Amino acid sequence: MREATVGIVKPKRLTFAAHPDQLVLESGLKLGPISLQYETYGELNDERSNAILVFHALSGDAHAAGYHKEGDEKPGWWDNAIGPGKAFDTDRYFVICSNIIGGCKGSTGPSSENPKTRKPYGLQFPMITVKDMVNAQAALLDHLEVGQLLATVGGSMGGFQALQFAVSYPNRCKLVIPIATAGRQSAQNIAFNEIGRQAIMADPHWNGGDYYAGEAPVDGLSIARMVGHVTYLSDETLMKRFGRKAKTGTCTNGGLSLQPYFEVESYLRHKGNSFTRRFDANSYLYITRAIDLFDLAPGCDSLSSAFRDCRSRFLALSFSSDWLYPPYQSEELVEGIQQSGLAVEYHRIESSYGHDAFLLEADKVEEVISRFLIHEGRKKYFEVDQGYPIS
Amino acid sequence: MREATVGIVKPKRLTFAAHPDQLVLESGLKLGPISLQYETYGELNDERSNAILVFHALSGDAHAAGYHKEGDEKPGWWDNAIGPGKAFDTDRYFVICSNIIGGCKGSTGPSSENPKTRKPYGLQFPMITVKDMVNAQAALLDHLEVGQLLATVGGSMGGFQALQFAVSYPNRCKLVIPIATAGRQSAQNIAFNEIGRQAIMADPHWNGGDYYAGEAPVDGLSIARMVGHVTYLSDETLMKRFGRKAKTGTCTNGGLSLQPYFEVESYLRHKGNSFTRRFDANSYLYITRAIDLFDLAPGCDSLSSAFRDCRSRFLALSFSSDWLYPPYQSEELVEGIQQSGLAVEYHRIESSYGHDAFLLEADKVEEVISRFLIHEGRKKYFEVDQGYPIS
Repeated sequence: MREATVGIVKPKRLTFAAHPDQLVLESGLKLGPISLQYETYGELNDERSNAILVFHALSGDAHAAGYHKEGDEKPGWWDNAIGPGKAFDTDRYFVICSNIIGGCKGSTGPSSENPKTRKPYGLQFPMITVKDMVNAQAALLDHLEVGQLLATVGGSMGGFQALQFAVSYPNRCKLVIPIATAGRQSAQNIAFNEIGRQAIMADPHWNGGDYYAGEAPVDGLSIARMVGHVTYLSDETLMKRFGRKAKTGTCTNGGLSLQPYFEVESYLRHKGNSFTRRFDANSYLYITRAIDLFDLAPGCDSLSSAFRDCRSRFLALSFSSDWLYPPYQSEELVEGIQQSGLAVEYHRIESSYGHDAFLLEADKVEEVISRFLIHEGRKKYFEVDQGYPIS
Repeated sequence: MREATVGIVKPKRLTFAAHPDQLVLESGLKLGPISLQYETYGELNDERSNAILVFHALSGDAHAAGYHKEGDEKPGWWDNAIGPGKAFDTDRYFVICSNIIGGCKGSTGPSSENPKTRKPYGLQFPMITVKDMVNAQAALLDHLEVGQLLATVGGSMGGFQALQFAVSYPNRCKLVIPIATAGRQSAQNIAFNEIGRQAIMADPHWNGGDYYAGEAPVDGLSIARMVGHVTYLSDETLMKRFGRKAKTGTCTNGGLSLQPYFEVESYLRHKGNSFTRRFDANSYLYITRAIDLFDLAPGCDSLSSAFRDCRSRFLALSFSSDWLYPPYQSEELVEGIQQSGLAVEYHRIESSYGHDAFLLEADKVEEVISRFLIHEGRKKYFEVDQGYPIS
């Protein structure tokens, strides 16, 4: 059953918010038209009550499960969790995943055409926030005629969106599964993101964000990704996987060796370089800024005030070796949810994989997620005050 | 007594290893002439038995205590630990600190003149290792006519040198105090250093290391320092000190804010920029490479084999929130020392300051260091096999 797959999937695209109905952003600026690239897996039931919205993390996209064509080397980024018989069982649920606005994987972002200039937005793209991301996805749900979701789920920045959606749309989501995430971005994580941004902006090819007609700032983006990548792993994983192994054939001939000397260096450079072939540097700037701005309860110590209007039930998961969004941050979130009187189940999963555990430990969380979706999904926690208007 | 200072100190410089007596490096290449910038505090006693060699960390220098002139804003980097009545009591001990070779604070490094070309070495400077650093400092001890040291001490890379000195010169050091350090550099730490190096080398002003006649690669060096700086602090320190406080007067006007938005960003940029005014980018490359290459017992799981010939006594200190050289790495070191049959005292100090605790928590370690130096320093642990030849 674990080998099951949703098979070949066809990416879809929704375009909406054309002039004069642009999306009003949190900043007050308007964005439109907006395209959202998305994919769906499984079937929406007749009651339209089995939809699950999956939110992706910083470098993710709409391709969460299955393959785009025969022979694809890799499936979608969460294929081990989404599919027949898996945690998000596509025999039971209708699973939706959409690329965020600000992104570069088919949704409108800084590399998209600015309708005013007919050129890529670059830095003319407005600042977007996690709230804006979920507002755009709510429009996608309207289009799909999904009033109320059975569940939202996401890891890392995907967890930010899952939480924000529950807070912004208290009537639209029964269950919320925030994984390896937090109720607000920490100072240390802002610091790491800022280093990445500085590296991109220090690259002369970045050119104030206006590089689409020429060479991209690949050196800067690669360094930004290397910083990010180290924070996704753990000390233990790096030591087990690479340790102090030197590259074969490396020779320093007594001078400074500028070539990778240790395997971990070569690995990092490879990760950095390959990222530049699939990601836009300006998107990296905008999305990391949105991440840093995320705070469910600005100015409040406790996160509880954020959940005042919320009536969802929560399943929060953290991983022991995650030092980017460490367990204590999930625990602060859980405390805030509890203080607001809402139900929350919490598991701190033992794992040595660091933050990446949220992608890699699908086996360990499958049972707890399946059970939560089935048992809690059956209950009627709240009546929807007013039937949510379907557009 | 804690306010006491060694007062005004005068930096000194030793030049040695002129042709044809250059220092033979671990690589087999020769380096000479070599200048070492150093400072001393306190007086060498008649028995020449009260000398303590202090080793500095990556960005440190010979100026460990006191002031260079009246009105100096800041004292030396370890002034809270070195002085009358302090942990390294200059009323009792003769304390020596020297800038390492490869550095840029008065000792010979890549920014020094290459005698062959009459221009700065740049990348013509030979690769140096921690072993080479301590060999150069052994020559300084010869010059000072200090045969056997009472103690060596160092935090971080300074700890690498303290350990390497004890291993390289088993007859020259009675007591060894490695602080917030490890017996070998971890894969995660190699990864962070590599990101810094990549940032420097990606800066077009770096120019293959040949920039001394023009603009220096300050953007790259600044990013490297930002990466380093985050690893010196702790999540808790950053959260307490900056949290999510925004810069006053920051306005994003709806577009992407490229200016620092959070105080932690502004702080990091400041730290990065100010570092570029006092440090050489090539030195950063060479020294981080030396750090990454450090391994007391290459190819061995246990570190014990490194201490085969060593007869020193050890005091190892680690700090609870240090995630660059976490307590478990000190504990592996302690285990290796114990397995080799040597005496070692170990303390894991509670601190929220992260790796920087080794500089900031002088109060917490003063008593344990003072006692170790006095009690253990009195004992005769070993007879020197042969009187160490004084040059």
